[in-house]
Amino acid sequence: MKYSFKDDYSEGCHPHILKKLIETNFEQTANANYGQDVFTKEAKASIHKKLNHPKAEIHLVSGGTQANLVVISSLLKPYEAVISAESGHIEVHETGAIEATGHKVLAIPTEDGKLSPNLIQPTLDAHKDEHQVLPRMVYISNATELGTIYSQQELHELSSFCKEKGLLLFMDGARLGTALTSSSNNLDLELIAKYMDVFYIGGTKNGALLGEAIVICNPELQANFRFALKQKGALLAKGRLLGIQFLELFTDDLFFELGKYANRQAEVLSKAIEDKGFEFLAPTESNQVFPILPKTLIQKLQEKYEFHIWQAYNETHDVIRLVTSWATPLDKVQEFINDLED
Amino acid sequence: MKYSFKDDYSEGCHPHILKKLIETNFEQTANANYGQDVFTKEAKASIHKKLNHPKAEIHLVSGGTQANLVVISSLLKPYEAVISAESGHIEVHETGAIEATGHKVLAIPTEDGKLSPNLIQPTLDAHKDEHQVLPRMVYISNATELGTIYSQQELHELSSFCKEKGLLLFMDGARLGTALTSSSNNLDLELIAKYMDVFYIGGTKNGALLGEAIVICNPELQANFRFALKQKGALLAKGRLLGIQFLELFTDDLFFELGKYANRQAEVLSKAIEDKGFEFLAPTESNQVFPILPKTLIQKLQEKYEFHIWQAYNETHDVIRLVTSWATPLDKVQEFINDLED
Amino acid sequence: MKYSFKDDYSEGCHPHILKKLIETNFEQTANANYGQDVFTKEAKASIHKKLNHPKAEIHLVSGGTQANLVVISSLLKPYEAVISAESGHIEVHETGAIEATGHKVLAIPTEDGKLSPNLIQPTLDAHKDEHQVLPRMVYISNATELGTIYSQQELHELSSFCKEKGLLLFMDGARLGTALTSSSNNLDLELIAKYMDVFYIGGTKNGALLGEAIVICNPELQANFRFALKQKGALLAKGRLLGIQFLELFTDDLFFELGKYANRQAEVLSKAIEDKGFEFLAPTESNQVFPILPKTLIQKLQEKYEFHIWQAYNETHDVIRLVTSWATPLDKVQEFINDLED
Amino acid sequence: MKYSFKDDYSEGCHPHILKKLIETNFEQTANANYGQDVFTKEAKASIHKKLNHPKAEIHLVSGGTQANLVVISSLLKPYEAVISAESGHIEVHETGAIEATGHKVLAIPTEDGKLSPNLIQPTLDAHKDEHQVLPRMVYISNATELGTIYSQQELHELSSFCKEKGLLLFMDGARLGTALTSSSNNLDLELIAKYMDVFYIGGTKNGALLGEAIVICNPELQANFRFALKQKGALLAKGRLLGIQFLELFTDDLFFELGKYANRQAEVLSKAIEDKGFEFLAPTESNQVFPILPKTLIQKLQEKYEFHIWQAYNETHDVIRLVTSWATPLDKVQEFINDLED
Repeated sequence: MKYSFKDDYSEGCHPHILKKLIETNFEQTANANYGQDVFTKEAKASIHKKLNHPKAEIHLVSGGTQANLVVISSLLKPYEAVISAESGHIEVHETGAIEATGHKVLAIPTEDGKLSPNLIQPTLDAHKDEHQVLPRMVYISNATELGTIYSQQELHELSSFCKEKGLLLFMDGARLGTALTSSSNNLDLELIAKYMDVFYIGGTKNGALLGEAIVICNPELQANFRFALKQKGALLAKGRLLGIQFLELFTDDLFFELGKYANRQAEVLSKAIEDKGFEFLAPTESNQVFPILPKTLIQKLQEKYEFHIWQAYNETHDVIRLVTSWATPLDKVQEFINDLED
Repeated sequence: MKYSFKDDYSEGCHPHILKKLIETNFEQTANANYGQDVFTKEAKASIHKKLNHPKAEIHLVSGGTQANLVVISSLLKPYEAVISAESGHIEVHETGAIEATGHKVLAIPTEDGKLSPNLIQPTLDAHKDEHQVLPRMVYISNATELGTIYSQQELHELSSFCKEKGLLLFMDGARLGTALTSSSNNLDLELIAKYMDVFYIGGTKNGALLGEAIVICNPELQANFRFALKQKGALLAKGRLLGIQFLELFTDDLFFELGKYANRQAEVLSKAIEDKGFEFLAPTESNQVFPILPKTLIQKLQEKYEFHIWQAYNETHDVIRLVTSWATPLDKVQEFINDLED
Repeated sequence: MKYSFKDDYSEGCHPHILKKLIETNFEQTANANYGQDVFTKEAKASIHKKLNHPKAEIHLVSGGTQANLVVISSLLKPYEAVISAESGHIEVHETGAIEATGHKVLAIPTEDGKLSPNLIQPTLDAHKDEHQVLPRMVYISNATELGTIYSQQELHELSSFCKEKGLLLFMDGARLGTALTSSSNNLDLELIAKYMDVFYIGGTKNGALLGEAIVICNPELQANFRFALKQKGALLAKGRLLGIQFLELFTDDLFFELGKYANRQAEVLSKAIEDKGFEFLAPTESNQVFPILPKTLIQKLQEKYEFHIWQAYNETHDVIRLVTSWATPLDKVQEFINDLED
Repeated sequence: MKYSFKDDYSEGCHPHILKKLIETNFEQTANANYGQDVFTKEAKASIHKKLNHPKAEIHLVSGGTQANLVVISSLLKPYEAVISAESGHIEVHETGAIEATGHKVLAIPTEDGKLSPNLIQPTLDAHKDEHQVLPRMVYISNATELGTIYSQQELHELSSFCKEKGLLLFMDGARLGTALTSSSNNLDLELIAKYMDVFYIGGTKNGALLGEAIVICNPELQANFRFALKQKGALLAKGRLLGIQFLELFTDDLFFELGKYANRQAEVLSKAIEDKGFEFLAPTESNQVFPILPKTLIQKLQEKYEFHIWQAYNETHDVIRLVTSWATPLDKVQEFINDLED
C-alpha cells in the first residue's frame, strides 16, 4: 500500500470528534434538528469567541462546493457575476456549480492564485452596460489552490477596493486552518470577519469528517439564509453531526493546532526538497508543496507514494503537488525525504 | 427534558456505525475519495446482493432533498415536469428545490399519499401541447408522508402505466426501511429495482448519521451521474463516511432489523391508541402514527412529550403525528400509552 | 374558410401602426438601439401621461410570457415564490416558464379567476418556515383568463393586504385594454400604477403586432432591469418596432378605442346568447364570452366558425370560449348570432 | 444628424416586407398562431429549398440572444458546457444568458474570431473527470464578431472533429447573410446544413425588423423544441410577423441580395481606407471593417459619423468598427471616404 500525499482528506477525522459522537449519540435533538440543536449552538458560540463580531451569522454545511453555490446563488441577482482567479475552485473544480445556479464566473489569470485590486480593475472596466453581466462579487481562496496565503495588507486593500466598487467580498476558506497557522500569516478570524462580507471555515480538510462553517459577516446579507440552504439540499436532518465536529475543533484551539501540525510537515518536506536544490512552482506557505522534479525521480517516488502530477514543466521535469494534513505521520515525511536521494 | 416522538432523526446513529468509523479512521482512501473508496465499493456490493439487478448503478449522497434534486434535474429536459402527490416531500417540504433546478412539480391530491394510474391520467390529459409543461416523471414516496406503503400490485400497475406513457418512475425511499419491514408489505428491494427507473434507500431516517443510496436501475439513465452529483455539491470529499454507514447497514441485515424495530414500536403505540377508542387519519402501516385525539388530551401529553400537531380535525380534536425509530425505547412507548389515560 | 373567434391575435395590427412603420422606416436609430430610440422614448412619454406617476419606469418587450418571466425572475430571490390563481397564465399556459427561472408558483383555486386577501391568506398561513418556499409576490391578471375584471375596491384591498404582508403585487395586463374599457370597469392606468408594484400593458392582444409595456411603479424594484431583459433575450435590436407600436396605440387614445370596440362586440354576442336562454361559465365583462351550449349546437357552429371548447359542462353541454377583438367585424358577430337559431 | 456606421440594425426593414405586412394584415391565422400560420409554413418551405435537407426542422424566433439561449439550454444536460471563441457573442455580449440557463461557457482565445480543432483540443484535454464540466457543444459565429468568415475546408474539419469527439456543432448565423455573400465565401446553406447540428439564419441584421430562423439539422435534436421555445418566451402569438419576413427574404433571393449589397459597401470602404495606407485589425471579409486610424482622424470623423471605437491600438491610433448594411446608401460611403482626407 502506497502512502498518499495526494490530499488532506484521505483519512477519517480527529479522534476527539469520534469520542464526542459516541458520548452524545443517544441524546435527542428534537425541536432542534436541521442545525438548530444544542451542539451546533455551542459550536457557533465557540466560533463567535474567535470572531469578535457579534452580528455575524454562522451556518454549518457539509462541503465546499455546497458552501460556494449556496452563498453565491443566494446573494447575486440573476444578471450579476462573480469574479474569481482562473485557478479558483469555483472556476475549475466544481463542474459548473455556480453557472448551474445561473451566474457567470469572470475568471482572471494570476501568478500565485491571489487576486488584487490591480488584477480586478480591468474586468470592471470591460463591463460597461446591460449587454454584459454585472460584476458584483469577488471570490478568493485562502489558502489559495496554489497553497499561497493572503496577508493582512492584501486583504485590507482588497476589502477597501470592493467596498468602493460596490462588490461583495467572499472567501473560500476550505483551507483556512492552514492559512491562519502558516508561519507567514498575520491574519486571524477577527480580522477576516472584519474584511469579508462572507467567508467559510473549512472542516473537511482540517480534521473533520465533513463540514464547513459559513460566516455571514455583513448583516444586510443574512436574511433567510436557511431557506437558501434547504433549497439546495444543504440542511442536514441530523445537523448535530456538523455541530459536534465544529464544537470539538473549536475546543482548546484544536482547529489551529491541526493546521499548525499540517504546515509543519509541509515545511519539513519543502525545506528538504529545497536543500536538494529543487525549485518550486509557488512558495510553500501552507500545507501544499509544489516542487519541480525530474521525471525520473518522480517515477521512482510513484512506486512508494501517491501524489498529483500538477502540470508539465519542461521536457525533463514536471511539477508535483504534495499535501500534508493533521494526519500525516512525521516518519512518512522523513521516509519521503530519504527517498529523494537517487 | 421531554421525550420526543417528533421524528426518526433525533438521535445519532446505530452504534455499529460508530464502531466501524473508529476502526477504519486512519486508513487512507487516496485515489479513491469522493465516493470511490473501498468502503463505498463494499457497501454497494452489499446492496447489490439485495437488488439482484447487476446493471443497476448506486450512488451515495447525504440527504433526501439532495437526492431528489440531483435525480430529477439530471433526468428531465428543461420543459419536462415531475408528477407528485400533493403531500409529496418535493411538493411541500423542500423549499422549491425542484423548481430551483427549473422544473415544475405537478401536484395531485390523494387520499393516502399514494399515486395510481387513475389519479395520474387526468394530469396527462390536461397537458396537450407546447403551451404547457411535458409530464415526464412520476415521483412517489414509500413509505409515504402519511406512513402508508405501496403493495406489489400497486407498484406493478404504476410501473406498467408509466412505461406505456413514457414516464420515468422514481421512488423517494427516505423511509424505505420501515416500508419494506411493515407487516403489510409484500415488496423487497429486488422487486422495487425491477419496477423503478430510479429510487433511493434512506439511511438518515433508519439508523445512519446521514446518507441515502440512490439506485439507478434503468441503464439508459446512468451516464455521467457523478457530474450531476458534483455540480450540486453532493459529492463528499470523504465519501467513506457514507460508504461505511451503508456497509454497516447492509451487514447482517441491520437495515431491515432497524426498520422492523421502529415499526414494532409504532404498532404497539397504534394498537393501544385504537384500544382506547381513538381513530386515525391514516392506517398505521409503518413508523408514523396519526391518531385523532381530544385537544385536552393533547395538551396533557405535550407536558411530557414532543410531537407534531399535524392538522386540525374539528373543534375539539386535532390530528397528531407520532414517529418511532430504531432508537425508540419500549419503555417510552409504554409510558406514553399509560399517559393516554385521563 | 371559417371565421375565427378563437382569440384576439389572429390578425395583423391596426393600420395606423403599419402606416407609421412605413413613414419612419429609413430613419436611423443608431446610438439608440435596443429600446433607446426616439420612438420608444415618445411612446413612454405618452404612456407616462396616463400614469401620472413620474417615478414609474417603462420597458417594452415582445410578449406576455417573456414579460412574466423577466419580471418575476428579476424580483424574487431563489427561494421566493409567486402566488397565482390556479387559472393564471403563468400557472397553466407558459410551459413552466417561471419554474424554469427557479421559482415555485403557488396556485390558488378561484371561482372567477380573481384573487383576494381571503383567498391568499391560507397560503401564507401554510408557509411557516425554511422547509417551504417563501411567498413573496402575488400575480394577478386583468382581465383574467375568464374574462372577469378587477374593481377599484378589489385592487385597493389587494394592494393594502400585500403591503401589509410584504408581498409584491404584479398585474399581467395582456388584456388590460379590454379590462379598462369594460362597462363594469372603474379603474384607470393612474389607479393601477398606484396600486401595483409592477404591471404590464398588453399590445399583442389589443392591436399591435407584438409588444407589452412593462411598468415598474415601485422605484425600489427598478435597478438594472435592462440587464434582466438582455439576459432573457428580451431586448430587441430594433426596439423601434415596439416603440412605434406603443406610440401609435397611445396617440389619440387608440389603445382604449380598440379595447372598447372589442368589448362592444363581446357584449352584443353575449346579450344575444343570453336572450336565447343560455347560461355562462363567467359573466361577460370584457372581450371573452364563455357560454354553456348544447353539444349539438356547438357542432353546427363549428362548421362555420372556429372557437375553443373550453371545458366539458355536462353530458349534453360544453362551455365554449368566444373572443372578440379590435378586428372583429360586426357582421361576423351578427352572422354568428343568426346561426344560434336551430 | 450624424450618419451612422455603428451597426446593421439602425433602420427599419426592407420595403418588400412592409408591403407584404400590409397585404396580409387582415387575413386570420387562427388555429395557426404561435408560428403555425400559413406564412411561416411558406417561409419554411422557401428556406428548405436552399437547404436540400428534408429532415431539417426550422423555427423562427425574434432575436439572436434568444436563439442562442433556447438552442443551447434545450440541447445540453445540466453539467454540460459549450465551447466558444473568447470573442463569441454568447461569451461577451449576452449578459450571461447561457449561464442563466445553467451552463458554463468555455472560452478560447483566437486570432480572428474563428475556432478550429487545434484551438479546441487543449480545452478537451483539460476536462478529464466529474470535477469539471463536460464539454458537449461547440459554438461558432459566421460571420464572426470580427467580420471574418469560415471556409468550406474549415467547416469540414470542424464538423469531422466534433463528430469524432461527440461534440454538437452550432453556428450563430446572425450575420450569415453577409458571410454567404462574401467574395471570399465558398459555402452555401446546403453545405452548412450538412456540417452543422444546428444553426440559424439571421434576419434582424439583414433586412428584417426582427427574426432569426433556427435550423435543426440533426434529427436526434428536434424533439419537443416548441416546448423549449414557449418556455423561454420565444413563441410569438402573432408568429405571422416572423413568417412574412422570412417569406419575403427568401423570395427571389432577397436575403442574398441584401447581404451582397452590404458587403459591396464594406469593400468600397475598406479598399479606400487601404489605399490611404491604413491597416486593419482583421481582413475585411463581410460587412464589418476594422481600420486602425490616427486618433486625430477619428475625432474629425466623429463630427459627422457615428461608429464604435473598437479598441485602443497604441498611443496615437485606435481601431474603429464600421458596419454597412442593406440600407447603407453609396453616397454616404463615398462621403465618408472623402472625409478620410486630412
